[in-house]
Amino acid sequence: MTAYPETLMNALRAEPGLKLSDRATKAPAWWPSDAPQDKREAAERMKELGTLLSDLQERLFASALQEDSKDSVLLILQGMDTSGKGGVVRHVMGMLDPQGVQHFAFKTPSAQERAHDFLWRVEKQLPAAGLIGVFDRSHYEDVLIHRVQKLSTEQQVEARYPKIVDFEARLVAQKIHPLKVMLHISRDEQYARLSERLERPDKFWKYAVSDVEDRALWEQYQLAYEIAIERTNTADAPWYVIPADQKWRARLCVAELLLATLQEINPQWPAAKFDVAAEKLRLEATR
Amino acid sequence: MTAYPETLMNALRAEPGLKLSDRATKAPAWWPSDAPQDKREAAERMKELGTLLSDLQERLFASALQEDSKDSVLLILQGMDTSGKGGVVRHVMGMLDPQGVQHFAFKTPSAQERAHDFLWRVEKQLPAAGLIGVFDRSHYEDVLIHRVQKLSTEQQVEARYPKIVDFEARLVAQKIHPLKVMLHISRDEQYARLSERLERPDKFWKYAVSDVEDRALWEQYQLAYEIAIERTNTADAPWYVIPADQKWRARLCVAELLLATLQEINPQWPAAKFDVAAEKLRLEATR
Repeated sequence: MTAYPETLMNALRAEPGLKLSDRATKAPAWWPSDAPQDKREAAERMKELGTLLSDLQERLFASALQEDSKDSVLLILQGMDTSGKGGVVRHVMGMLDPQGVQHFAFKTPSAQERAHDFLWRVEKQLPAAGLIGVFDRSHYEDVLIHRVQKLSTEQQVEARYPKIVDFEARLVAQKIHPLKVMLHISRDEQYARLSERLERPDKFWKYAVSDVEDRALWEQYQLAYEIAIERTNTADAPWYVIPADQKWRARLCVAELLLATLQEINPQWPAAKFDVAAEKLRLEATR
Repeated sequence: MTAYPETLMNALRAEPGLKLSDRATKAPAWWPSDAPQDKREAAERMKELGTLLSDLQERLFASALQEDSKDSVLLILQGMDTSGKGGVVRHVMGMLDPQGVQHFAFKTPSAQERAHDFLWRVEKQLPAAGLIGVFDRSHYEDVLIHRVQKLSTEQQVEARYPKIVDFEARLVAQKIHPLKVMLHISRDEQYARLSERLERPDKFWKYAVSDVEDRALWEQYQLAYEIAIERTNTADAPWYVIPADQKWRARLCVAELLLATLQEINPQWPAAKFDVAAEKLRLEATR
C-alpha cells in the first residue's frame, strides 16, 4: 500500500482564502516523497490505478442495480485554455470502461439553453446511478467567463454562487459525488502550448482566436477562479487545485482523486435478485 | 503492412441466404493464415490497432469542424445474451478517447418510447459529426425479440424491415457510416457463460432470469437473426457475422472492421480557420 494519496489529497484541497499565485503549477514543495517523481514513475502508478479504478467502476455500475444503493460520481473539470482538460478525459477516463463513463463538454450555450436558468442544461447531463460523469467545463463557466467577459451583470453572477452551492448540495444528497478539479497552469506554460498549436497542422483545430483574447485577461480569470472556488468550496463539494504544467503530474493527481472518491463510496457487488440454486437447475435443463 | 484485414472483412460479410448454422462460432476454416492465431498474437495486434484507431478517431473528430466534412461512425452491436457485446465496448471502444465515443445501451423501451415509432428513440442517440457511436442493441430488437416473443404482430414486424432499410440509407446519405455486427456464439458457449454468471457472486448482476427463457427459444432467435440480416443486408449498410465463442477473436474482428471503416472515411486534419502567421504575432504580443 502506498501512503501518499492521503497527503496528496489534503495538499490539493483548496484552502480558505486561496491565492492561485501561491499555488505551484509544477513540482510543488509539498509533493510527497513516496509519490511518483517523474513521468516514468507516474506511468507505473497509472497502470496500477487503471486496474484499481476499473474494478471499482464496475462495482459502482453493478451496485446501482440495488434499490438502496444509487451512487454516482461527477468529475467537474475546469481550467484555462490548454490546461489539459481534454488530456485528463483521454488518459484518465480513458482507462475506464466506456459503458460506465458519461462524458459531456459544455460549449457556448444554444439559444434554447440561454432561455433557461444556467443550471438547466447542467441538470440534463447529470450521470445516472452507477455512472461516472465527466464535465469538461460546467456551470462554473457562468461565474467565470460571464464575470470576466461581462456576459452577465455583476448582480446576476453574484446570485449564481449560492445557487451553485445549493445545486451541489442537492447532488450530494442524491448520492452524486462531485469531484471538482481546477487544472492550474502558469501563464508561461499556456504560451508554450498555444505556440505548439500554431506550429503543428495537426493541432490547428484545437486553436481558437478567442484563446489569445482570453489570455490577455489572464489576471481577471485567475481572480474569477479564486472567487468561484472560495464561494463554492463546501465540505461536501470541495475544490481541488491541481498543478498542471506537467501533464503526467496533473493526470496522476486526478486519477488518485478519482480513486479516493470511489474508495470512499466503496461500492459492493449486489446480491443475486434470484434463487441461485433454482436458476442453476433451470439452466441445466436447457443444456 | 498486414494483408489479412481485407480477407477477413470479406469472410465476415453476411452472404445472401445466410444460414447461421453454417457459420463457425470459433476458429473458422477460412481464418487467414497471416492473421493472429491465438490470444497472445491477438493482444499484439490489438496494441497496434489501438494506436491506429486512436489516431484516426482524433482525425475524425477534428475533421467534423470543417463545413464540408461531417462524417461519423455508428457501430451497431447485436447478439444473443452473453455474446460479448459489453466486452467489445470495454475492450475495443475502450481503446479510444472517451471524448470521441458516444455509447448507448438500448433497454426495454419506456412508456414514452413505446408511444412513438420504434425508430424515434434510436434517432435521438445518433452520433453527432466526428463521433463514433456505439449501440449495444438497437432498432433490431424490434424485429428480433419482437418477432420471437410476439411483442408485435407479424404484420408490424414485417413492416419494420423496409423502414430499417430506409432509415439506414438516410444515415449513409448524411455520412453516418453504419457498421452492423452480429456476435455469433454457439449454444454451448452460452451455456458456459451463463453458468459462470451463476457461479461467481461478482457476476450475479449480469444474470437475468429471462436469459434462460430466451435460451429456450434459441432456434427461433437464430431464425429471427437470419431473416433480419437477410432483409436489411444492403450494399451501403452490410452485416458482419463475427465468430464470438472466443472473446479475443471477436474483439479483434470488430477492431479490424472499425479500422477499415475509418480508413475508408480517411478523415483529414482541418485547415486552419485563421491566419496562422497573424495569430503567431498576436500570441507573441501576449508573451
